[in-house]
Amino acid sequence: MEDDDLTNQRLLKDIEFIVELDKMKSVLRETSLIDNSRRENDAEHSWHISVMAMLLAEYADDKIDICKVIKMLLVHDLVEIYAGDTFCYDVEANKDKKERELKAADRIFGMLEEDKGKELRSLWEEFEEMKTKEAIFAASMDRLQPFFNNYYSGGGTWKKFKISKGEIYARIAPLKKASQELWKFASNMIEDAYKKGYISTN
Amino acid sequence: MEDDDLTNQRLLKDIEFIVELDKMKSVLRETSLIDNSRRENDAEHSWHISVMAMLLAEYADDKIDICKVIKMLLVHDLVEIYAGDTFCYDVEANKDKKERELKAADRIFGMLEEDKGKELRSLWEEFEEMKTKEAIFAASMDRLQPFFNNYYSGGGTWKKFKISKGEIYARIAPLKKASQELWKFASNMIEDAYKKGYISTN
Repeated sequence: MEDDDLTNQRLLKDIEFIVELDKMKSVLRETSLIDNSRRENDAEHSWHISVMAMLLAEYADDKIDICKVIKMLLVHDLVEIYAGDTFCYDVEANKDKKERELKAADRIFGMLEEDKGKELRSLWEEFEEMKTKEAIFAASMDRLQPFFNNYYSGGGTWKKFKISKGEIYARIAPLKKASQELWKFASNMIEDAYKKGYISTN
Repeated sequence: MEDDDLTNQRLLKDIEFIVELDKMKSVLRETSLIDNSRRENDAEHSWHISVMAMLLAEYADDKIDICKVIKMLLVHDLVEIYAGDTFCYDVEANKDKKERELKAADRIFGMLEEDKGKELRSLWEEFEEMKTKEAIFAASMDRLQPFFNNYYSGGGTWKKFKISKGEIYARIAPLKKASQELWKFASNMIEDAYKKGYISTN
């Protein structure tokens, strides 16, 4: 659209942002679909964990603002449009992750009018800092979903990259703070996955 | 997981539901990504419109419960796991859409404990009935996203299936009730798309 067609420049920025978001559908993650047909992307992952938050909120140990959790999850990976997905178990790639993502955040949230960019960025920052109970619950969803996909696809990235049991427990540690019920469930699942041979080392 | 590993059967149903949701990533829609690389799927679409709702809520003419809108959008297409996506401009396929989706709703929401299944189903029903202001706003997001993808990819399904200008105006009619600002913007966009040759007939 030409600028002169429009009366509302604020809305135009929103639309350009919405168009940019389409690229999330092409940011590939290491995790595969449960049917093992292909790797999933950031848009799919973000949707899956948002619905998971709706479903699992009742198991949170503390009262949480589920609306905030969902909003956080919907935008938590937007920086990956420019920074790419960094595989959680890739030690080397995680070294400059923060720096890459901060630059990406300036770029993506900077597309919007200042107040709006700030609002979305603060959701992302809260998620990243993982201090509030909403951020801890959100992080738990973000970690549980690839965990389920690995378990139900017969090992997934655990098997492919020889991830140890200790690494998996460390990865899902936020669950311990978010929900005793979910933590117990996930711990049982890790032990079961180990028994089944999906996880090769301690 | 074996049932005897678990103390919480309610949670087990939730997990099985979450695993089933992975299939949303394989339900293809007619709409393509903006870069025209491939068709998008229901999970991606559901994520995109949920973020759109966050961004565009400020343009709603009436005060809306945005949290409800987002929840509605996150689950509005779940029935398509079994009923498939029905292309909005396909008159023939739309004839038995309702029947197919009702059966699918029994199946998908029936996977959950009764209270939970009912809660999610009522969000889907509210969306389908398109009567509340939240449902009208949600429908507007659902219709705007493929609209944007068509416009920014150079015509998309409008061009491919020779959709008329009248059909497009009819499709985005809910916008008129949801937001004067968005309706004006989208109307300008249709006229511009017509000028550009993305829409071939009146």
